[in-house]
Amino acid sequence: MKHIEGIVFDLYGTLYDVHSVAGRCSEYFPGRGLEISLIWRQKQLEYTWLRSLMGHYLSFEEATEHALLYTCKHLKLPLNDEARRTLCDAYLKIQPFPEVHAALAELQSMGLPLAILSNGSVNSIRNVVGHSGLTSRFAHLISVETVEVFKPHPNVYHLAEKAFDLHRSQILFVSSNAWDASGARHFGFPVCWINRTGNTFDELGQTPDHVINSLDQLPRLLKQTHTA
Amino acid sequence: MKHIEGIVFDLYGTLYDVHSVAGRCSEYFPGRGLEISLIWRQKQLEYTWLRSLMGHYLSFEEATEHALLYTCKHLKLPLNDEARRTLCDAYLKIQPFPEVHAALAELQSMGLPLAILSNGSVNSIRNVVGHSGLTSRFAHLISVETVEVFKPHPNVYHLAEKAFDLHRSQILFVSSNAWDASGARHFGFPVCWINRTGNTFDELGQTPDHVINSLDQLPRLLKQTHTA
Repeated sequence: MKHIEGIVFDLYGTLYDVHSVAGRCSEYFPGRGLEISLIWRQKQLEYTWLRSLMGHYLSFEEATEHALLYTCKHLKLPLNDEARRTLCDAYLKIQPFPEVHAALAELQSMGLPLAILSNGSVNSIRNVVGHSGLTSRFAHLISVETVEVFKPHPNVYHLAEKAFDLHRSQILFVSSNAWDASGARHFGFPVCWINRTGNTFDELGQTPDHVINSLDQLPRLLKQTHTA
Repeated sequence: MKHIEGIVFDLYGTLYDVHSVAGRCSEYFPGRGLEISLIWRQKQLEYTWLRSLMGHYLSFEEATEHALLYTCKHLKLPLNDEARRTLCDAYLKIQPFPEVHAALAELQSMGLPLAILSNGSVNSIRNVVGHSGLTSRFAHLISVETVEVFKPHPNVYHLAEKAFDLHRSQILFVSSNAWDASGARHFGFPVCWINRTGNTFDELGQTPDHVINSLDQLPRLLKQTHTA
């Protein structure tokens, strides 16, 4: 990591906690919030992968809504229009993980440009980042919208190279999603996997270059490896 | 379905029960067989989708082996080389669902050519079908091997059109996997979804043309719709 000139973060599950919607889910379906949130997230991801493979792109927000519809049908929970709108809207207000505010401030003070590269639409990314008051931390908010395919398709990762005008080897890619970290590493980024909850890295032929269990470990890691 | 001239079946989970490996898993990990089998299958599918999207194809058998490695790491179960080989080998001997033998015989007697279109390699498909004594039922055993991408990529479904030398509208596609049925229908096949266990159809913008809960309902369905 001696030549890192920029850092790209995944958004959903990496800087922001997708399961922060569980509370809102529980308001409509008491005691079922986390169960709903877990299936919802799994199906949301599956639908981005499957739609990309089918060649039938739709926005991340539509995939999210469809995944919620599936989840409620599957769990036999009645979802009226108001609940559907409110819960999908909650995805625009997901919360950053606790250490994210301070860690991003420290990384920014080190002079490295920061960016987000996300499956979300331009509008969603702006909403989520703006709602958390973190907009000024980022030089670029990059959406898959322009390439109309989702991660881990290489066309997505290429967007970060273009935005930074840097070679992939100069960009550190940071994700908590093992499949995303694998896709980014296969593309050619050095990769840091944030493993907050003792997960198992996926067997996709890749190994992360660095593993941390909280974002606040990243500034020190960068300092160590830059001065090594 | 008035102009159906051929039938294409998915293999894994449709004609053959992927969870018939659970018994072998239990021999190595008593009481854990079905748990292992369920995670193994989910990861196997994810790895085919993710590898396809990353543009980093590998054979279905390799994806299956990698998914087993993940599963055992995730469950903290020690997997030695002998167990790994034996369990992967069990995937070449999975069992057809109970009604499949009789249903295929009846469909064949109706004069419709039958085929399998599978993510598996040529070798795997031959092994599985041969082991169950069903080889003579099929006019074509079609593998994704030649296009080096997995379902639901349209290039896979196109292989069935080529093998039958029929237009997609003349081929009935039969799958128990809702995502596969969705991909096939988006491609343009009329689709029959076999829902044996009360599953929820995925929200991928498609609806199956026919739903049955066992393959033995297919001959009657074809007779009804052909004479309608």
